[in-house]
Amino acid sequence: MDGTDRCVTEPGQDELVDALRLALISGVGPRIRKSLLERFGSARAVLAAAPSELRDVYGVGPKLTHNIAAAAEEIDVEGEIALCGEHGIRILVESHADYPRVLREIHDPPGVLFVRGTLMPSDALAIGVVGTRHGTPYGLRQAERLAAGLARAGLTVISGLARGIDAAAHRGALAAGGRTIAVLASGVMNIYPPEHDKLAEEVAAHGALLSEQPPRAEPLAGTFPQRNRLISGLSLGVLVVEAAERSGALITARHAMEQGREVFAVPGNIDGRTSRGCHQLIRDGAKLVESVDDILEELGPLVEAAPRDDGQVIHHPAELLLNELEQQVLAAIGSEATTIDQVIAQSGLPVPQVLSTLSVLEMRRLVRRLSGTTVIRP
Amino acid sequence: MDGTDRCVTEPGQDELVDALRLALISGVGPRIRKSLLERFGSARAVLAAAPSELRDVYGVGPKLTHNIAAAAEEIDVEGEIALCGEHGIRILVESHADYPRVLREIHDPPGVLFVRGTLMPSDALAIGVVGTRHGTPYGLRQAERLAAGLARAGLTVISGLARGIDAAAHRGALAAGGRTIAVLASGVMNIYPPEHDKLAEEVAAHGALLSEQPPRAEPLAGTFPQRNRLISGLSLGVLVVEAAERSGALITARHAMEQGREVFAVPGNIDGRTSRGCHQLIRDGAKLVESVDDILEELGPLVEAAPRDDGQVIHHPAELLLNELEQQVLAAIGSEATTIDQVIAQSGLPVPQVLSTLSVLEMRRLVRRLSGTTVIRP
Repeated sequence: MDGTDRCVTEPGQDELVDALRLALISGVGPRIRKSLLERFGSARAVLAAAPSELRDVYGVGPKLTHNIAAAAEEIDVEGEIALCGEHGIRILVESHADYPRVLREIHDPPGVLFVRGTLMPSDALAIGVVGTRHGTPYGLRQAERLAAGLARAGLTVISGLARGIDAAAHRGALAAGGRTIAVLASGVMNIYPPEHDKLAEEVAAHGALLSEQPPRAEPLAGTFPQRNRLISGLSLGVLVVEAAERSGALITARHAMEQGREVFAVPGNIDGRTSRGCHQLIRDGAKLVESVDDILEELGPLVEAAPRDDGQVIHHPAELLLNELEQQVLAAIGSEATTIDQVIAQSGLPVPQVLSTLSVLEMRRLVRRLSGTTVIRP
Repeated sequence: MDGTDRCVTEPGQDELVDALRLALISGVGPRIRKSLLERFGSARAVLAAAPSELRDVYGVGPKLTHNIAAAAEEIDVEGEIALCGEHGIRILVESHADYPRVLREIHDPPGVLFVRGTLMPSDALAIGVVGTRHGTPYGLRQAERLAAGLARAGLTVISGLARGIDAAAHRGALAAGGRTIAVLASGVMNIYPPEHDKLAEEVAAHGALLSEQPPRAEPLAGTFPQRNRLISGLSLGVLVVEAAERSGALITARHAMEQGREVFAVPGNIDGRTSRGCHQLIRDGAKLVESVDDILEELGPLVEAAPRDDGQVIHHPAELLLNELEQQVLAAIGSEATTIDQVIAQSGLPVPQVLSTLSVLEMRRLVRRLSGTTVIRP
């Protein structure tokens, strides 16, 4: 079974079947799923639970109790797994090693992710780029330019494959030869809007299409806001390029704030409506962005070091701004106190260059001075 | 002596002559003038001081000592006073009752102001509107629109009569039938740039031209930054409409911050350079402005209540945003605790209207609730 083999490496097939079945039950959203797992311990135990036990869980009513009881018969998990196998779609349940670590941090992680394309360890360095479907030429140009710049710096661009700003962001990353991930509200075999079919193929080839809905799921209105939490959840920060006052992009920004991600916004002329949402975000504390540097300088150190595709290990997104000399000096400094003599010896660079470069690194908050003669990574 | 009479009401002629002579000495800027007055007590005493005493004052060297000693002979104060009389220019020394109170608050007030036109008590409600001389059509449109809106709300628009944004701000205020004041770096009889001659006449007719330089003074490069502190000093806040990274408008904004005035900035598209300065200000904490309401809502209560031209007395700029009903309820509340029953009796309005209007006023921070039944102006 070649297909199944591509779908699963770990956990075991049984566990996958149960987790998938639970995730696909109508009415079991990420929060109720989490409550159920906390109460019963595993997907298998939830599915085997008595109706009276289920109803004890906050938010579970008679209808959901019925749906859970009927799941074994009504949900064709094996069929979905076979379908994924046929179409090269990976299924990642939350316990899977390749399930994005950052998504596990959010308070309502999806129980399952369907993936067309590939997820890479370097995707831990990602920025969400979102905005209105009704982007102006200005907004589309900026989305493409900034996404291209982020991609060139080595960041993965996450967006929602929607018309307007989202599509421009994916295109910018692709044009720069970078990686991009589209998080869909529909299934990964049901591309919406249909005219983005070709763009979706390109995204899958240079990144991934991702959804928590089964592959053939329709794009339902209710799933869009829910999807937005994954765009921010997968990102270190979310950049809103253009957004009117009630744009879905603002929901993504709100998710980002709740998830402790940074929020960035591009300002624009005040005589249109398309930048109003961005301006509101800036008033509420979002960082005003004119360039990629504005984003990289604002991001804090990574919780976990991320490898770049070129093998370089990144501890802090601002490292992506460094020139070769700066990288060389930084590489000579450990996470324990390092004397400047050690840095000089390790880097093999002349003293004045090391000293002036240390000042730059200090200014960028990549290095902290412990004393006149010792430095450390913060 | 009709001319002299128009120049001076108070202080006495001798005091005016001395104050003017001191202010006109080359090299005596606002700060040194202040130090001299603090040391010697009066302009007359400064002019009579011995060189050895003068040199004790910080910043006073041999050249300035010479200039002060020579002032009695070299500066034709009487000629300047006569000239002002002939051209209807008022001379306000710092001790004059009509000298703007807000200017006395700054740490380097001008020793003398030359005024063409009129200063009104309502000019205490003023906003500076400034920006680049190289305004884009977008910036010019916004400057005009926002200045017009401020003028309609009853605020005086202060600017610098420069090309670009400044001129658009004056024009906007004039078009709305409001008041506007131009603070010049040259003398009020030496309009710069020359093509703004007609605009200057209109400003003088519906507000004032103001300068700390004598009437025929040339526009010297050094006097422009110095002039900028008066634009902010005369204003409750400064709105920067468009400014590149090294624009003089940013100097005005910095003065505003140092003087404890509010700073406002209009954002714009990031693909030009003309909004870069505004964006930097916003990053540094300036309030992002899309509308006049954004400005009025941000301003705190006035240090001293200001009368509007229509006689209404304003305690807080946000009062300019109120409708008639809200004004009526606010007028019934004193600066001492007022019971809601008193407000109802005083305003003659039905209870539900008073209660809902009080909520609006509370939200706008114009009224503070002391208890369930008493309110007060903050």
